Amino acid sequence: MVVEVKLVSYTPGPDEWAHRFGGYPARLSIKPGDVLRVGTEDCFGGRVQHPGDIPSEVVKFEDMNPVSGPIHVEGAEPGDILAVHFIDIIPARKYAVSSLFPHFGALSGTHETALLHDALPELVWFYDIDVEKWTATFRAVRSDFALTLPLDPMHGTVGVAPAFGESRLVFVPSVYGGNMDTPELRAGTTLYLPVSVPGALLALGDGHARQGEGEVTGTGLESAMRTAITVDVVKGAEPLGWPRLENDDFVMSTGSIRPLEDAFRISQKDLLGWVSSLLGIDTFDAYQLVSQLGVSPVANVCDPNYTFVAKFPKRYLDTAAYGGVHNRLSAIADDYRKSYARLW
Amino acid sequence: MVVEVKLVSYTPGPDEWAHRFGGYPARLSIKPGDVLRVGTEDCFGGRVQHPGDIPSEVVKFEDMNPVSGPIHVEGAEPGDILAVHFIDIIPARKYAVSSLFPHFGALSGTHETALLHDALPELVWFYDIDVEKWTATFRAVRSDFALTLPLDPMHGTVGVAPAFGESRLVFVPSVYGGNMDTPELRAGTTLYLPVSVPGALLALGDGHARQGEGEVTGTGLESAMRTAITVDVVKGAEPLGWPRLENDDFVMSTGSIRPLEDAFRISQKDLLGWVSSLLGIDTFDAYQLVSQLGVSPVANVCDPNYTFVAKFPKRYLDTAAYGGVHNRLSAIADDYRKSYARLW
Amino acid sequence: MVVEVKLVSYTPGPDEWAHRFGGYPARLSIKPGDVLRVGTEDCFGGRVQHPGDIPSEVVKFEDMNPVSGPIHVEGAEPGDILAVHFIDIIPARKYAVSSLFPHFGALSGTHETALLHDALPELVWFYDIDVEKWTATFRAVRSDFALTLPLDPMHGTVGVAPAFGESRLVFVPSVYGGNMDTPELRAGTTLYLPVSVPGALLALGDGHARQGEGEVTGTGLESAMRTAITVDVVKGAEPLGWPRLENDDFVMSTGSIRPLEDAFRISQKDLLGWVSSLLGIDTFDAYQLVSQLGVSPVANVCDPNYTFVAKFPKRYLDTAAYGGVHNRLSAIADDYRKSYARLW
Amino acid sequence: MVVEVKLVSYTPGPDEWAHRFGGYPARLSIKPGDVLRVGTEDCFGGRVQHPGDIPSEVVKFEDMNPVSGPIHVEGAEPGDILAVHFIDIIPARKYAVSSLFPHFGALSGTHETALLHDALPELVWFYDIDVEKWTATFRAVRSDFALTLPLDPMHGTVGVAPAFGESRLVFVPSVYGGNMDTPELRAGTTLYLPVSVPGALLALGDGHARQGEGEVTGTGLESAMRTAITVDVVKGAEPLGWPRLENDDFVMSTGSIRPLEDAFRISQKDLLGWVSSLLGIDTFDAYQLVSQLGVSPVANVCDPNYTFVAKFPKRYLDTAAYGGVHNRLSAIADDYRKSYARLW
Repeated sequence: MVVEVKLVSYTPGPDEWAHRFGGYPARLSIKPGDVLRVGTEDCFGGRVQHPGDIPSEVVKFEDMNPVSGPIHVEGAEPGDILAVHFIDIIPARKYAVSSLFPHFGALSGTHETALLHDALPELVWFYDIDVEKWTATFRAVRSDFALTLPLDPMHGTVGVAPAFGESRLVFVPSVYGGNMDTPELRAGTTLYLPVSVPGALLALGDGHARQGEGEVTGTGLESAMRTAITVDVVKGAEPLGWPRLENDDFVMSTGSIRPLEDAFRISQKDLLGWVSSLLGIDTFDAYQLVSQLGVSPVANVCDPNYTFVAKFPKRYLDTAAYGGVHNRLSAIADDYRKSYARLW
Repeated sequence: MVVEVKLVSYTPGPDEWAHRFGGYPARLSIKPGDVLRVGTEDCFGGRVQHPGDIPSEVVKFEDMNPVSGPIHVEGAEPGDILAVHFIDIIPARKYAVSSLFPHFGALSGTHETALLHDALPELVWFYDIDVEKWTATFRAVRSDFALTLPLDPMHGTVGVAPAFGESRLVFVPSVYGGNMDTPELRAGTTLYLPVSVPGALLALGDGHARQGEGEVTGTGLESAMRTAITVDVVKGAEPLGWPRLENDDFVMSTGSIRPLEDAFRISQKDLLGWVSSLLGIDTFDAYQLVSQLGVSPVANVCDPNYTFVAKFPKRYLDTAAYGGVHNRLSAIADDYRKSYARLW
Repeated sequence: MVVEVKLVSYTPGPDEWAHRFGGYPARLSIKPGDVLRVGTEDCFGGRVQHPGDIPSEVVKFEDMNPVSGPIHVEGAEPGDILAVHFIDIIPARKYAVSSLFPHFGALSGTHETALLHDALPELVWFYDIDVEKWTATFRAVRSDFALTLPLDPMHGTVGVAPAFGESRLVFVPSVYGGNMDTPELRAGTTLYLPVSVPGALLALGDGHARQGEGEVTGTGLESAMRTAITVDVVKGAEPLGWPRLENDDFVMSTGSIRPLEDAFRISQKDLLGWVSSLLGIDTFDAYQLVSQLGVSPVANVCDPNYTFVAKFPKRYLDTAAYGGVHNRLSAIADDYRKSYARLW
Repeated sequence: MVVEVKLVSYTPGPDEWAHRFGGYPARLSIKPGDVLRVGTEDCFGGRVQHPGDIPSEVVKFEDMNPVSGPIHVEGAEPGDILAVHFIDIIPARKYAVSSLFPHFGALSGTHETALLHDALPELVWFYDIDVEKWTATFRAVRSDFALTLPLDPMHGTVGVAPAFGESRLVFVPSVYGGNMDTPELRAGTTLYLPVSVPGALLALGDGHARQGEGEVTGTGLESAMRTAITVDVVKGAEPLGWPRLENDDFVMSTGSIRPLEDAFRISQKDLLGWVSSLLGIDTFDAYQLVSQLGVSPVANVCDPNYTFVAKFPKRYLDTAAYGGVHNRLSAIADDYRKSYARLW
């Protein structure tokens, strides 16, 4: 039996894009269990289209990284947890773009790591995207070298309205999510975000056709996306300190701050608290277990805050997180896939 | 001859306090050259009044550190520099309060430096303030020891509306000023801030009757203030990257970011650029000079961003910064003092 | 045909342990291609044997983390690269020990992150080790919870004599290797170290029956080991800036320094230089590729320097590193396994 | 009455210079109360003498920053504190040299802050030194600008043998002192160092005719020095965690580590512990006082460890540190000055 899925679609144009988390009215409203097909633009606002389009010339700083939303989720109230399950993240164009921004990236002086060097060269890489073959083709800019890579699409930027009326540029990852830039945010993953305003006001964008851990140059394979999500609202749980993720294999905590050791500390402390709760064991016993079983990939070391992810294998847990919401949303994803085309 | 000074007064109550930079309409408007007497509340919103008032119990997080403003400055346009000269900063009460917040301060685990330690004890120190004698008296909480210190009043938090529509909690120091917590922001000092919105939207608060360099516990001698400022708008100068300060002896640059070495780098790079411009010498020659003549006190190592100050002695400069605005505002300060009482 | 393997054995007692890299004469000498069976003691010097043995009471700081060696490798000269291939790393006892040291670990105040908190409790966990089943059994110290984990043995500390006559305590990871504490240093992996003195003077210890990424508590499943290695000397290659690793699937670079973002930067820059060389592409093209294909697990965030690892999948490379030394040493490992028992 | 001062002189040549702390036999021995006239070479080993001498070409890395010593101090035993009082620090030549090293300094990518930028230009500044007028004259390298500055001579590098047999390059500042590069280490100051080996094994060098706080380019006015010191050994005091300083106005603590916030934390925690002990007040009361009265200049943000200084005004103390050793050594300095010429 296939359950009927309520499908909502939303692909905003430039006039509707949001450029901050917080400070915007909702663009649409969805209910828990609805599937939303949402189109997102790439981090360049779609303006880098051909070789010769220089990002810093064709896009203004404040227009970069637009997000689709905010989306009001019915029933979400401050203190709740918003669960966002990614069903599909599919590149929308036959190309993706990556670039070396002036004064950006982990191996460059930046506005914050203020040095006296001239900027590195502003280079642009166009990747050919083949959704059928699920590949991206890299072409070197300084030689004829080419290499075909598997797609592994993800969203760099997903968040809700911050607490206390703050409004933050979309480049920032923080407590409310935002520009975490972790490859873990792929299809099949549930993201948990802390709700600070009625309706949560979810927004997302910054799709990457793939990205390594750390996003060392500062960009992935930047790509407009056709994405399908479904959501739920968790009530009565301990409010989230920081965004969490879950897939079929891992529960994951995140921390987004500078310096990087503090991002690591936040993610590890949050994870051991979660593991302590799921296993019903003492904090220090959980600290010990996480120390021996934890997987700790860095997400980004380029954004205004750096993001670390801490992962614990679910095979060692006997309790489902948040009453099994990940499985329930995964089931909705299955129903959606049975009824609807993957490409739209 | 005493020039007539236009005097404006503004002391808001709790309903008018602002809790963020950005996102508030102007409360009042002043003109360049006006003197504004502005009353500010202490960082506890005035709610810690007696021994036994525990800050974390009597003040909510989001009500901490209220600022007076925002104040619209006539003629200030995006790209201009707002010059704010502090004429007087005078404690308003017979006491000031300092405290050890749970999970705050440079020698404590915090929300960001996430550790497994229990909180340090939440202790409160009341200082007796004597404005006539210009002293504050410390009394130990765990013995009978007492010590009388000179006042050295300052404002921890002074800023304008951020760029690009952001709205930031008052605890944050950043490009637009905010909670820099530097003892250099005392009477006799001119603060330069980058204007991002029409009217600049200045706000200030968080007076300290005195504070050491680094604000290591996270609080100074927190004190409501009776403050007099005058302002000017600098047009046509290179837009500010970060707040700058000037007093009779030094030009100063600031940087507010984590980690602390980046705050240092920002302040030093900004200062050498300024010195390069004022002396008409090459960047690397200025780098060399700043390296040998620079004075580099840390401001705070406790706030969401850390702040460093870089100072260069004016006696080695032969050009006045920004066409001599510091001296012009100092002259207005002199006129004000001749015509008006210091205490009000 | 099985090639004859020259087998050397060395298991030092307490009087022969080394406690620093640099400053010791060689204890033995081996030739490239020899297989060395080397016994190593655990980080407690074997002195934590029973519940109730408190590490800080039974082991002096300066006696912690002893290493076996130094081992002179014939033909190794300054500027060469020493390749150390780990054939087997097998726990030597029926238990492993992990502990929470006072003022140590990523979620604790430390000697360097100097805070005012009391130390966390000094807890000790004994794991049952079953080499036949290849499992370790965790038992909670504050409840009856138990969990069986797979073994994944590694050496935390492997290094050579530092350059310029320095002598560093074994706790430190740095340019010459040392206490990198990465789970990547498991059997089947080749470690490349820069040779700074004749004979290289290799030493190793600090076995962990397993360890999570980041070693957040500061200890793994500390275990004496029975380890088999074989070595080679690479001549004529560009001298190493930092230790590198290679297994059948990845080439890997490391960086060991504080702060953590600099460890990340070092590892990424070294890796992209290596990839640039192996693929024959430009530095910035390699930067781009590493940014999209890189895997970036943290190693330790507890030691005097933090260690990051940057990995690139070998399936995208068409040239073997260092003339294929990893494969040659792997073949020796195969020969050894055919001729000799795994347990000794 | 002038007390007779025992005078010892020692000015080593290149063959006697030390390049590490630890690992050298004593070159000479002095007694507490002796005055030692010690000549030190500049950080270039005296090899940058004329415009056109490029430091990276004329001096090898491992020959940089030679120190004079080690000096055995009679009676100094592990656990004691060595007090080194600087009587005079006088530039030995008519010039001092400052330079911009490739990949060195706070505003440059470095070996540790590994970036992809080309090196900054290697520039060299020669200052004219006039010991009679007590001035140094700066001459810009890229214009005709010149500026005369007051001398303020100091030693960048002063330390003893490290604990546990370590041997560290002279570039490193750490627990045993070393390359702290603080302008506070001027004549009139007493430096306290922890003794780890019999005789302490003091060595010093790296004189700067002056240096700003932070040493942002990585060099001061590098100068060979004619220095006079006297020493004492403090027994029975709590062993030092980190080097301390004292002059007539301040007691000072230092911390030398990365990242910079940890250097700050170490210095502040050490200072409040010292103040707590000197005033006989509780730790948290001392934390409060230091937070309000502390002066916190950064020392260096360029060396392998960064150094922070935390200062507390002695006018608020009623007990002399270490039984008044600073005053006793200052009195010996007075006696020396009465009997001997300042220039030698």
